[in-house]
Formats: sequence, structure tokens, C-alpha cells
Amino acid sequence: MSDLLSEKTPIRARHIRPGEGQAVEVKTGQLLQIQTLQGKQVADFVAFTQGDTEEFLSTSATRATNATIVPRLGMTLYSNRRQPMFEIVEDTVGRHDMLYACCDPVRYEMLGAPGHASCRQALTEALGTYGIGYDRIPSPINWFMNVAILQRGELEIREPLAEKDDYVVLRALKDVIAAVSACPQDLTPTNGSNPTDLSVRVYRDEPLPPPPVMEQQPVPIETAAPVVATNPTPRPALLQATPEASVFRITQVNSEEPS
Amino acid sequence: MSDLLSEKTPIRARHIRPGEGQAVEVKTGQLLQIQTLQGKQVADFVAFTQGDTEEFLSTSATRATNATIVPRLGMTLYSNRRQPMFEIVEDTVGRHDMLYACCDPVRYEMLGAPGHASCRQALTEALGTYGIGYDRIPSPINWFMNVAILQRGELEIREPLAEKDDYVVLRALKDVIAAVSACPQDLTPTNGSNPTDLSVRVYRDEPLPPPPVMEQQPVPIETAAPVVATNPTPRPALLQATPEASVFRITQVNSEEPS
Repeated sequence: MSDLLSEKTPIRARHIRPGEGQAVEVKTGQLLQIQTLQGKQVADFVAFTQGDTEEFLSTSATRATNATIVPRLGMTLYSNRRQPMFEIVEDTVGRHDMLYACCDPVRYEMLGAPGHASCRQALTEALGTYGIGYDRIPSPINWFMNVAILQRGELEIREPLAEKDDYVVLRALKDVIAAVSACPQDLTPTNGSNPTDLSVRVYRDEPLPPPPVMEQQPVPIETAAPVVATNPTPRPALLQATPEASVFRITQVNSEEPS
Repeated sequence: MSDLLSEKTPIRARHIRPGEGQAVEVKTGQLLQIQTLQGKQVADFVAFTQGDTEEFLSTSATRATNATIVPRLGMTLYSNRRQPMFEIVEDTVGRHDMLYACCDPVRYEMLGAPGHASCRQALTEALGTYGIGYDRIPSPINWFMNVAILQRGELEIREPLAEKDDYVVLRALKDVIAAVSACPQDLTPTNGSNPTDLSVRVYRDEPLPPPPVMEQQPVPIETAAPVVATNPTPRPALLQATPEASVFRITQVNSEEPS
């Protein structure tokens, strides 16, 4: 179970079967959890800004701004306007793809399986009510997809490393419409040759536990004694991932409520 | 000078200075040459289907369908509908990028250079007459851009390998609007720290030289004697890159016009 989300109740929950897609609205600061239910299952993921769907999650802006092809814990995901859209705040797997297009009807024709269900169609159906059509489904982030890059840049799809109940948690940095499909690809190792279900949940942006009030000013790191807090609330995992925010918060408390 | 294009006259030619973009229309079968004029210069490249600009060149569909992150000679480039848009028919460099987003105003703000010219703005200006705005500039192919992928997926921009007059030639497989910008990035090694000019030319789809008429039927490869053609027209480089097409052509002649 997620450190960050334990004991919280989702405000939205979706169960997604292979070949299906679901769209959920996520407000700034809310948390979006995408979880495998049986493991080895890829989640194709796209997102748009609420009320301004010309702005969308861009894998190329995310690769370029982070100078990496691999989505990682703590990374910011950017839009086509290079604005922050999400932060990856939890990740129990660490292996995902942002190189592959969604599977689509033409892909399955090429594989000799015309009429096969596809992520692109599933996402199009899920986003239809927002006026987002087939041609506007962006290049996705494929959570849990395991793509090896070989010596000369060749890509090789392998079984996901994700096991039962593995998940990622994203914090929305904008009000977004996110859509997820459970990839129905059963002709390649993409989903361990056996597509299974996914769960998507949205959690409220609950106030963080009150920050600890410092008994003493922080001392230079070279000579630092353990800093004792009067409020020993366990720090949520989120803050461990963003030490800058934590420092800022303590500073603010010290200046407004000197102890 | 290109083997394929030597002694041909372009039907359209554009000179592009760093920070500028140009759009050209290219009909099915026509050839588009993108050439450095001084070397070490990146050409950001996007394309749309004429009369149906919701279809555009997709780097993710191209990566996925070819199972590679590196554009290579002979490769087909696909649209967001996974339809063939171009074939790479000549390439004097062999090192290009299809991972990076266009540089844009936000990128230069991050680099401490607000107001710097950018590929995204240049392509937007070039495509304005086609009703294609800033948000719809797709993830580009960056011809001549040299991006190394390190052990953990980190991306490192290096100087282009392209020297003076290096080029790529694409054959259009649809009627397209192509747009090219000469990247103005002078704060990183992207353009060898010194952006320079590009040339873009479109060549007509001229008939290929008549196929050689075979003096004898092809013999099995194990015992093949040199095949002598009565018409010793040099084969254009194009056919060397697509031996299947060449074989098909000879077979067709043999069956329709037995010698």
C-alpha cells in the first residue's frame, strides 16, 4: 500500500479492463494513482489541461526538459507548452516507457489481427465527451511498459517488471483531464502476453500534517546535532521526495510563529 | 552532391537562416532535400498532410513501427494515423534525433535567455498560413542533431556530425506540407555552438531511367554469372537502397517484354 495514500479514501475510482479506457478529472494538488491489479500490465496515459485541451502532456517536452528517456520518481512531466503538469511522487516499479505510440488499429493490421481492440481507440472513446478525437491522442506515457534500448537504438519490448498491486502516484500541478487505458496487446510480451485489469484512483489534496516546530534553529550541516521536533508526526513520503518544499515550510513556520 | 539529385533542377528552393522557418509543399513521389551549408547545424522538421492537417508526422508512431529511436536510411516515417509519409532515401550523416522537442521560449527562459529565437516560434510562423498554431507543432525529427543516450537513459546533446553540404533526402509518400527551421540554439553544443544556414529543395518526381532489359533470365544466386543489361544506364542510388523494388521491376519487364 502506498505510504502517501494509506488511510485515505479516493474521491474517484475506476476499474479498467484490457481494451477499455477511462478519463478522470484531477485538480491541482490532487493525487492520481495508477495501479496494476494482477501485475505485468501496461497503462497508456495521456492528459490535457481542463478547459484548454490544446495543452496536453508532451513526452518530447518531458524528455527534453529532464534530459532523459526514462520517467523517474521525483520527475516533473511537462506539457506541449513546457509547463509542469504532474510530478511523479511515488513509483514502486521504476521502469516505464515514453517512446512508444499507443497501439492502434493499423498496428494490429500489421500484426495480422485486424479489428483487435487498441489503446488508441479506448482513449478516444474515454475522451469523446471532452471533444478530443482520435487524431489528437498524444504520444502517451506507458506506465509499467518495459522497453529495452539495444546497442544501435533498436527498441525491444519485454515483459513489465510490475507485479500485482504495483503502482505510480502522480501529483497534478494543473487542473487536468487524465485518461488511462489498459493495453489489450496479447500478441507480444508488452503485457506479459496476458492483459489484465488496472485501477485508477484520485485522492484529495489533503493538508499535510502540521510541520514540526523546531526546538532550535538548524545548525550548519557539518556540526548538526539531531534536530528534535516537538510534533513527531511521521513525515509523509512525499516530503522526502521534495526536500526543498520541506525546508521552505519550516522556514515559514519559524518566521510566522516563532517558538 | 547527391547521387540521386545530381543534374536535376529543384522546383522549389529555400534558404533558411538560424531562427527562421520555411514551409514547402511536397507532392507524393517528390524528393525533399535538407542540407547544411556550413555544417554542424540542426534542422527541426515537421510535416502535415495537405488538406487534412489533423494528420501529421509522428515521431512516436515512427519509433514504434520501426522499433528504433534512430532515423536511418531506408526507413519509413509514419503519421499519427500510422500511415507512411516519407521514406529516407539518402543520408550522408546517419546521426539524427527524434526524441527532443523543439526549442521554445520556455526552454530559453530556463537557460536564462528570455526572448531568444526558437524553432517552435519559427515553425509556427512558417505554418501560420496553413492554420497550424503553436500548440499544434508536433514533436519534430531533428535532422543532424546528435544526442547520446547514456547508461541510465540520460540524454546528452553533442555537436552534430554533419559537415558542410551534408544532407538527407526524403521521398514523400503523401502530399504533404513540410516545415523546416534552422535551430538558433547557441547556448549548448546542439549546433556546434554556432548556428548556421540550411538549404531546403524540392525535386520533381522524374521517371526513373528505363529498367535494364535482361539478356537472360536471372539464375539462382549460388551459380549466378554477372547479369549483363543491354541498357547500361547507371542505376540511381535510390534503387540500391530498395533492392526489392529493383527485383520487382526486372521481373515485370521479363514477363511483359520477353527478350
